[in-house]
Amino acid sequence: MTTSNNRRNFLKTAGSAIVPVLMPAGTLFAATARPQEAPAVRPVRFFGDGETFEPEDYINELAKLNAKGRIERDRYGTGGVVAALEKKFTEITGKESAIFMPSGTMANQLAIAVLSGESSKVFVQDTSHVFRDEADAAQSVFSKRLYPLAPGETYFTARQLQDTIESLPNEEVFRTGIGAVSIENPVRRTDGRQVPIDEIRKISTYCRSNNIKLHLDGARLFMASAWSGVPIKEYASHFDTVYVSLYKYFGASAGAVLCGSKDVIGKMGHLVKVHGGSMYSNWANAAMALHRLDGFEERLQSAVRRSEEIFASLNKIPGIRVSALSGGTNIYTLELAKEIDGRKLQEKLNKEFNVRMPRPNDKGQGQLMVNETLLYQSADYVIDAFRKSIR
Amino acid sequence: MTTSNNRRNFLKTAGSAIVPVLMPAGTLFAATARPQEAPAVRPVRFFGDGETFEPEDYINELAKLNAKGRIERDRYGTGGVVAALEKKFTEITGKESAIFMPSGTMANQLAIAVLSGESSKVFVQDTSHVFRDEADAAQSVFSKRLYPLAPGETYFTARQLQDTIESLPNEEVFRTGIGAVSIENPVRRTDGRQVPIDEIRKISTYCRSNNIKLHLDGARLFMASAWSGVPIKEYASHFDTVYVSLYKYFGASAGAVLCGSKDVIGKMGHLVKVHGGSMYSNWANAAMALHRLDGFEERLQSAVRRSEEIFASLNKIPGIRVSALSGGTNIYTLELAKEIDGRKLQEKLNKEFNVRMPRPNDKGQGQLMVNETLLYQSADYVIDAFRKSIR
Amino acid sequence: MTTSNNRRNFLKTAGSAIVPVLMPAGTLFAATARPQEAPAVRPVRFFGDGETFEPEDYINELAKLNAKGRIERDRYGTGGVVAALEKKFTEITGKESAIFMPSGTMANQLAIAVLSGESSKVFVQDTSHVFRDEADAAQSVFSKRLYPLAPGETYFTARQLQDTIESLPNEEVFRTGIGAVSIENPVRRTDGRQVPIDEIRKISTYCRSNNIKLHLDGARLFMASAWSGVPIKEYASHFDTVYVSLYKYFGASAGAVLCGSKDVIGKMGHLVKVHGGSMYSNWANAAMALHRLDGFEERLQSAVRRSEEIFASLNKIPGIRVSALSGGTNIYTLELAKEIDGRKLQEKLNKEFNVRMPRPNDKGQGQLMVNETLLYQSADYVIDAFRKSIR
Amino acid sequence: MTTSNNRRNFLKTAGSAIVPVLMPAGTLFAATARPQEAPAVRPVRFFGDGETFEPEDYINELAKLNAKGRIERDRYGTGGVVAALEKKFTEITGKESAIFMPSGTMANQLAIAVLSGESSKVFVQDTSHVFRDEADAAQSVFSKRLYPLAPGETYFTARQLQDTIESLPNEEVFRTGIGAVSIENPVRRTDGRQVPIDEIRKISTYCRSNNIKLHLDGARLFMASAWSGVPIKEYASHFDTVYVSLYKYFGASAGAVLCGSKDVIGKMGHLVKVHGGSMYSNWANAAMALHRLDGFEERLQSAVRRSEEIFASLNKIPGIRVSALSGGTNIYTLELAKEIDGRKLQEKLNKEFNVRMPRPNDKGQGQLMVNETLLYQSADYVIDAFRKSIR
Repeated sequence: MTTSNNRRNFLKTAGSAIVPVLMPAGTLFAATARPQEAPAVRPVRFFGDGETFEPEDYINELAKLNAKGRIERDRYGTGGVVAALEKKFTEITGKESAIFMPSGTMANQLAIAVLSGESSKVFVQDTSHVFRDEADAAQSVFSKRLYPLAPGETYFTARQLQDTIESLPNEEVFRTGIGAVSIENPVRRTDGRQVPIDEIRKISTYCRSNNIKLHLDGARLFMASAWSGVPIKEYASHFDTVYVSLYKYFGASAGAVLCGSKDVIGKMGHLVKVHGGSMYSNWANAAMALHRLDGFEERLQSAVRRSEEIFASLNKIPGIRVSALSGGTNIYTLELAKEIDGRKLQEKLNKEFNVRMPRPNDKGQGQLMVNETLLYQSADYVIDAFRKSIR
Repeated sequence: MTTSNNRRNFLKTAGSAIVPVLMPAGTLFAATARPQEAPAVRPVRFFGDGETFEPEDYINELAKLNAKGRIERDRYGTGGVVAALEKKFTEITGKESAIFMPSGTMANQLAIAVLSGESSKVFVQDTSHVFRDEADAAQSVFSKRLYPLAPGETYFTARQLQDTIESLPNEEVFRTGIGAVSIENPVRRTDGRQVPIDEIRKISTYCRSNNIKLHLDGARLFMASAWSGVPIKEYASHFDTVYVSLYKYFGASAGAVLCGSKDVIGKMGHLVKVHGGSMYSNWANAAMALHRLDGFEERLQSAVRRSEEIFASLNKIPGIRVSALSGGTNIYTLELAKEIDGRKLQEKLNKEFNVRMPRPNDKGQGQLMVNETLLYQSADYVIDAFRKSIR
Repeated sequence: MTTSNNRRNFLKTAGSAIVPVLMPAGTLFAATARPQEAPAVRPVRFFGDGETFEPEDYINELAKLNAKGRIERDRYGTGGVVAALEKKFTEITGKESAIFMPSGTMANQLAIAVLSGESSKVFVQDTSHVFRDEADAAQSVFSKRLYPLAPGETYFTARQLQDTIESLPNEEVFRTGIGAVSIENPVRRTDGRQVPIDEIRKISTYCRSNNIKLHLDGARLFMASAWSGVPIKEYASHFDTVYVSLYKYFGASAGAVLCGSKDVIGKMGHLVKVHGGSMYSNWANAAMALHRLDGFEERLQSAVRRSEEIFASLNKIPGIRVSALSGGTNIYTLELAKEIDGRKLQEKLNKEFNVRMPRPNDKGQGQLMVNETLLYQSADYVIDAFRKSIR
Repeated sequence: MTTSNNRRNFLKTAGSAIVPVLMPAGTLFAATARPQEAPAVRPVRFFGDGETFEPEDYINELAKLNAKGRIERDRYGTGGVVAALEKKFTEITGKESAIFMPSGTMANQLAIAVLSGESSKVFVQDTSHVFRDEADAAQSVFSKRLYPLAPGETYFTARQLQDTIESLPNEEVFRTGIGAVSIENPVRRTDGRQVPIDEIRKISTYCRSNNIKLHLDGARLFMASAWSGVPIKEYASHFDTVYVSLYKYFGASAGAVLCGSKDVIGKMGHLVKVHGGSMYSNWANAAMALHRLDGFEERLQSAVRRSEEIFASLNKIPGIRVSALSGGTNIYTLELAKEIDGRKLQEKLNKEFNVRMPRPNDKGQGQLMVNETLLYQSADYVIDAFRKSIR
């Protein structure tokens, strides 16, 4: 397609050393509809897990993808690009089957509901999305009792899970059975910290030997994988079902994919329907996610490396301290010395360098998140931007 | 008249030498991706309720819309083009409030669940979508008892509803209360036939004087309105909640809008969330529907007039009989005399004239559906196509 | 059991002049608490399915039973006379397992819920108790869709069931699975008419070969058995679960027993608990039912024979016509000629002969029900009472 | 004093030559069924909350009650002694309305379900029966989320409740509303300890000013009242609904009563029905409870005074230490010095003195519970029994 290429060529020549792969069609409109505007370089954003696309850019991305091979639509989730995406996810996770879902909440809830069957108790992290951020869906719609473990912590251990389950007969009169266990990894409410793979292995071993089903809320699983080095497929192998978000870093407007055995996923089509999630077509979400998945892990690894380069340099600047969280993923702590005005730093980075970061608090504490947008500029550009903005 | 016509005319005259800058965004692909192809005129389709867009066309439509004014995305249903669409629907229906829903099933089910409250019984047409085509969602997820009336018929009368309700104490031992009444109009399972507005008025009067809430499954309400001449707003005025589909004739990939009072619609956000329908963004669906809504009623009226012209002429051709259904909307009966080979007619229309119709059965019986696509060609063109294809 | 039979024999020979000294514990109060009253002979009642006991008589029956061997209480349904009753029912029905339930509604609903599992559709007679007289419990609490067959009829045929199930794909878009089938036999709403055993066999064969579970609402199953001659055990053999009422003719104040496989019944304890039906003890209900079960079938057979003798004689009285219903059980039609005043007949029978019957309507039409109380007087006594009351 | 004592004294003097007419009905068996047995004095039991009746005694109690005025049965909870019991409870609690329920679980669950309405969250004590001992009924049947407060404690404070509710917006993303608060008092899992009336007042004030409904699980409320001196009516006044058990100390075989406003209780009949708790008759439970309620508070006060006398004397015996729990009710701590063999003490008390107590553990620690059975013997008799059993 010509206009897209024009933009890319323009950007290349215009000098800010852009990686063409990443900077495609997004500025179609800049070239056509509003040719008078300067072609925008997308901002480097130290927040969020990945690139999200405003409608104009989204349309351009879809156009680009369609140009590579006509996008085929699904009908009520069957066929087309939705089927292709589902197939891709079975390859990524090593699971037999996968299904597109309109939301992560639906993916989590239906997985837990099916895995726990007739039993009410589902063990979750106290800090998990399922427990705190799905509006009590598990209880009010799916009649489950979420049993929170490890208050305030990122994860519970296999030992804690086992102790809790074994002490239930002393804690309650009636035996209600053990429904399922759900683990979020990484955990958004603890700043993206991970559940260690060793602990996951132990929990999985315990669950399998006790016939307890295990669900992974892997909304941001690719973040865990990028920082832990554990392949997605290995994570998935320890769980009966795995949900991955399509909009947090794959750019889709919405959607989720749930993976698991044919038996479990085979029940989902009906459940999605009766819960009102069967939509006429989701090709625009599926196409974008499929498109962005292509090369995503490599791009994220590049971003990680770039962040290391940037943070190492920033830490040499007096008054700036960027440090990784213990067991963390893409969220880093920023500490500024008193003499640095965090607010001004943030404003200057944004206005003068198109580098965006969350505003630090009054004590100079803040966070920097690593994601694909770091690739929009060179490490030197970003480091230089910080240096100049501090003054 | 319509942009569609403008676009078609433009393409016809301009051929393939289109300057991107000047080109309406909607034809990007025709001009760029496959410049070697002749600009396609979309087929006239005698099936379906309206235009549906394959991904390529969809992307072009969105681009066209964005060019007219940048599309603003929603976040979890709040703001942007979703809010604009909801506002538009409050104007169309005269209801206080409106909310985007991912599917008609969710819209119907949540409306019925909220309107019926603690009571189990919901009275519906035996032929309705809610009763037959939502996979028992009302029963299995929302714990409702659908009470079907008027088996095989398009509608029940106010008299029948009243008689049924009044005889319940004889039919059952326990008084379980009257939850709500839901009416589909027009009814897809009876070939798009309508519920007469007079009957709706009577049912509404009965329900209001007995404090029974009333829901309208108006998935195809604009079809009813176009054939009955009754304004959308009047239909809506007789019901507590009204659902309209966004993908059947407004071109969206998916989605529905539910309208009603602030009280009722105010409960929906939470319910959508716990049922898993809260999606990160639905701007692409909302934008398309909002775009296509613009001028839709006028276009459909034009299509109705054109169909009248076409059918009148077809009926003068020996061996062809097109007739309206009693109380019908956009579905017409086609009867072919023995000497006309329905299969050949269908094939020739398609191949030689880009006019598509459902294949008649062995007895020469079939259906012709009226929708916007009739405007893609002149009446003469279509009539001529039939004449030539019969030979 | 001896006392009942003895009592009946005694009553036969002694007429109404009963000597308290010989009378067993059942009349303790007549003899002790109110010795001044004439010892009452219990009324012959041509309504109801069996003897029901007012508190005083109930206490005496329990005392009588306890005197024969101390009644042992259950604790929350475990042990004692409840366990003994459950064991007795496994013997009667030939099922592996049985459980006491507080109500027939709970027995029916839990059976259906467990048998139908994840599927929503449960096929029932349109005239059945489950469909009409359980206050929409199946829908509102157990999220089932009851699918009524054979409107107004006593039963549906295997053919009708099969046709319905096979035509579902044409009737609805989505396949929701076949949950279970429930049959009431006899059917109270069709005046106690029976489902023919041949039809039951066919339905059972169809269901088993299609892996569809089958429940029997046998609240009054002993009535069916007494009139059809089909043993309880044979009826039960065709179903997965069988419920029998404890209060309709076994004299208990309340209660039901549900019988089935260990797997199915094994789930019930928990379900009874969570639905609030786990009571501290039900010994008084279980003891009475166990007591009255002893010899019940023989007594009922005697009552049937006595009713035949009585009705044959009544039919020789000019102006009286008693006739069995086609396929009926213990409910008979009474027709009185114009010259007989039904109201006076009823009053005189009651006042002068302690024989009670439902009052005929203005046209002289009424019903006579056969039950154990017919044994309280000789056939001659009852026939004579009618003769004298007609004048 | 009590009828129990009267009966025992009578039997002692009258021997077995009892004239039925004069005999209190309660001793029917002693006189007739097993006249050869010596009339038993019921054991003093230092466990349980009240007298429970084995079937034989139960029958005698009912007979005694019936002799005082014929017991009238209810039909499906309407009329008769059930209505009388419900009326009695409205007087006791000062609530508008009351309803018999088959179990405390049903009473608690339906109260909570109705009070919390559309909201999922119900705040309870971590140690409460509703949270731990109802088999997850609230979650699995009523789709509620129980939110436990004050882990391991008898009660939460108004402050804790308020803080929890106010911090919810920080704890969770979505506002799901506050359904209701349920308080158990006294708390069985903390050895019968009480919620202080001052705290109840504060909680009630907070709830009422925030339109949060409040339920009292007062299964053993009469124990709280007896030890706190706070009238039942005052406790009840702070709550919207109050449940009291009928079998823990009122002698019924089973049952509960739920009290509240006409609006709330008016919804219960239907809910009891659909949950399977509508039984044909519960006269035997209602009659016993109504009978035993008569004078219960006075008898319990007598038992408390007697326990004080007994425990004061026991504490003078070297090696015995009986002490009240802080904030406790009828459960006392027993500590035995090493030189006293708890097991022998328990056995001797039982065999030689018909005084029963739970067996102390190996360290000589145990519990003594106070209830009506202490009135079966004089304080001197019991004290003497301990003295002699220690040797």
